[in-house]
Amino acid sequence: MIIKKTFDESEEIVVSKKELRLFVLNCLEKVSCSPAHAQQLADILICSDYRGHYSHGLNRLHVYVNDLAVKSTAAEGEPIILKQKGSTAWVDGNNLLGPVVGNFCMKLAIQKAREHGIGWVVAKNSNHFGIAGWYAQAALQQGLVGMAFTNTSPCVFPTNSAEKSLGSNPICLAAPAKNGDSFFLDMASTTVAYGKIEVVERRGGKRIPRTWGSDANGIETQDPKEVLNGGGLQPLGGSEITGGYKGTGLCMMVELLCGIMGGSSFGKSIRKWQTTDENANLGQCFVAIDPECFAPGFSDRLSCFLDETRELEPIDPAHPVQVAGDPERAHMIMCDELDGIVYKKSQLKHLETLANNLDVAMFKAKKMKD
Amino acid sequence: MIIKKTFDESEEIVVSKKELRLFVLNCLEKVSCSPAHAQQLADILICSDYRGHYSHGLNRLHVYVNDLAVKSTAAEGEPIILKQKGSTAWVDGNNLLGPVVGNFCMKLAIQKAREHGIGWVVAKNSNHFGIAGWYAQAALQQGLVGMAFTNTSPCVFPTNSAEKSLGSNPICLAAPAKNGDSFFLDMASTTVAYGKIEVVERRGGKRIPRTWGSDANGIETQDPKEVLNGGGLQPLGGSEITGGYKGTGLCMMVELLCGIMGGSSFGKSIRKWQTTDENANLGQCFVAIDPECFAPGFSDRLSCFLDETRELEPIDPAHPVQVAGDPERAHMIMCDELDGIVYKKSQLKHLETLANNLDVAMFKAKKMKD
Repeated sequence: MIIKKTFDESEEIVVSKKELRLFVLNCLEKVSCSPAHAQQLADILICSDYRGHYSHGLNRLHVYVNDLAVKSTAAEGEPIILKQKGSTAWVDGNNLLGPVVGNFCMKLAIQKAREHGIGWVVAKNSNHFGIAGWYAQAALQQGLVGMAFTNTSPCVFPTNSAEKSLGSNPICLAAPAKNGDSFFLDMASTTVAYGKIEVVERRGGKRIPRTWGSDANGIETQDPKEVLNGGGLQPLGGSEITGGYKGTGLCMMVELLCGIMGGSSFGKSIRKWQTTDENANLGQCFVAIDPECFAPGFSDRLSCFLDETRELEPIDPAHPVQVAGDPERAHMIMCDELDGIVYKKSQLKHLETLANNLDVAMFKAKKMKD
Repeated sequence: MIIKKTFDESEEIVVSKKELRLFVLNCLEKVSCSPAHAQQLADILICSDYRGHYSHGLNRLHVYVNDLAVKSTAAEGEPIILKQKGSTAWVDGNNLLGPVVGNFCMKLAIQKAREHGIGWVVAKNSNHFGIAGWYAQAALQQGLVGMAFTNTSPCVFPTNSAEKSLGSNPICLAAPAKNGDSFFLDMASTTVAYGKIEVVERRGGKRIPRTWGSDANGIETQDPKEVLNGGGLQPLGGSEITGGYKGTGLCMMVELLCGIMGGSSFGKSIRKWQTTDENANLGQCFVAIDPECFAPGFSDRLSCFLDETRELEPIDPAHPVQVAGDPERAHMIMCDELDGIVYKKSQLKHLETLANNLDVAMFKAKKMKD
């Protein structure tokens, strides 16, 4: 069961994808981004907002714009394959926009999965690639299982550490079920994202749950201000006693598949978030798997598993059991019904500033149907 | 830095691997297990105890013995390859002992990794395979990255569910660093194992930390008795508010790679733990990756990453930062120094009962050097 999301006209506006696309392209043109690359970045940012992952959508456009403006990200060129063997390839992202590198790599992984059952492509010299789910989805659309991983700037305290040395390194796997249904896991390996803590603080909240964040010394705190002022995130699980060492392990596993395997920057050597004094040189990993290489009827069984999970008796009938991807599906259904993407009015100020700075026309809200 | 473990002669005994092996083989002979299969099971059970994962070692021998005795597990035969393409293979475990199926599959994955860069082998009709790390280690010993996954009997409440429907589905990845060092993650996708809760209860503890377990209705509890009497485990992260939906997602991801991909039993349809009225028909997934297919110098970078992490400033100098595999390494070093495997005296009763039941001579503790 998908829990339907609702739209509140006093708080929210709806913007057509066409308007959003034009806006993103206009902004990127101002920083001399190759039009083909700009299209790719626009696609993923809009998809991210459409799925309800606003922290990775237009909200972050200014970061890409800034990287391009100061030439910390290359505005044109193509990734190149450095070597390949069977199922595998190693790619140099040539410091291009993350989505340009990611799309290149996932396309290659899909080709290799068709030929060898699996495609496993690792890139170095990449940049922030947006939501990992975008790449997994490309495999999903081909009837394949897709996975995507990236390392990120240090924001996480490993268990028992007083220093931040790991990124929020996402783990993403999407797999096709029947009739367009899917399993769609796209998660940071931290308990929560920074954005969730910022929201508590902005609303005047004084306490966050345990396991979310740490103060500047790495000690678990329930004060959102301490996390946001020089503190950091806790790995999934929180402290050692609540299994945080497993979150640390997962976070390091992703780094191993990305930075260590790809030969990019890794761990605490990755540049700080939003700095541009050196190139990001991120490592990323893209996997496609053809489920038909194993037991026939993969999608049937997956549908059965997903439905069986959704139909479990809930603790509270107001909160039915969901599977990975359901909250995003509910968000996309709401957007489809409104024929555009829903934004909180409070989200717009930030984009208006960007529009003003770049001298680009702001996108317009849609007129709601009566 | 590896935190050295110490041995306490008043509480603990040391048994040579040779004694242990003989004991396991004698027990398995009594239930007509093929000698070659018995060797494989003995290897992994002893390895498990050697690594300090007692919950998966000789402690579980009676489960395998019972499965063989009632013919719920086949005592002889070989797994067969049902189909293969490029990097992939689908295997029928023919209801053999889990380690027999697992060793067969990982050997195949390693061959495929040599040829195609990756080997990805999925089995159906398998049984409990012991520690996932055993299989990952086989890849590690060949200079490869190894991964292993299995589904297990339902013991976990998915987020918001009042019913248990998922196993403690382990995630395991091992990768070679320099000079015998390695990253070695082998974790259940729950916050803790049942064993940890049993230990608290046996020692008279009245409270367990939040995020560990749920009562029989799926509601988080801090009373170990409620967990052990019909309750169950929480996914890594605990409840929804502390990120448990991510643990649920990881748990389902493992099921997807095992039961859904392999065409075995899956989710809540897997037989209950220690029942034998139907075959276990577990699904398992084995992966080997040749890191030389990507950036040269993998092991050097991994060593740098591991050491850099261990050398992070700790919150408390008495608890240095460790990486996945370090606690097991410390345990193995202690065992090596004592030239045998350390057991708590309290662990032996259970094995004495098994020895009596099967009319097998109990193993002898080593005489300690003076």
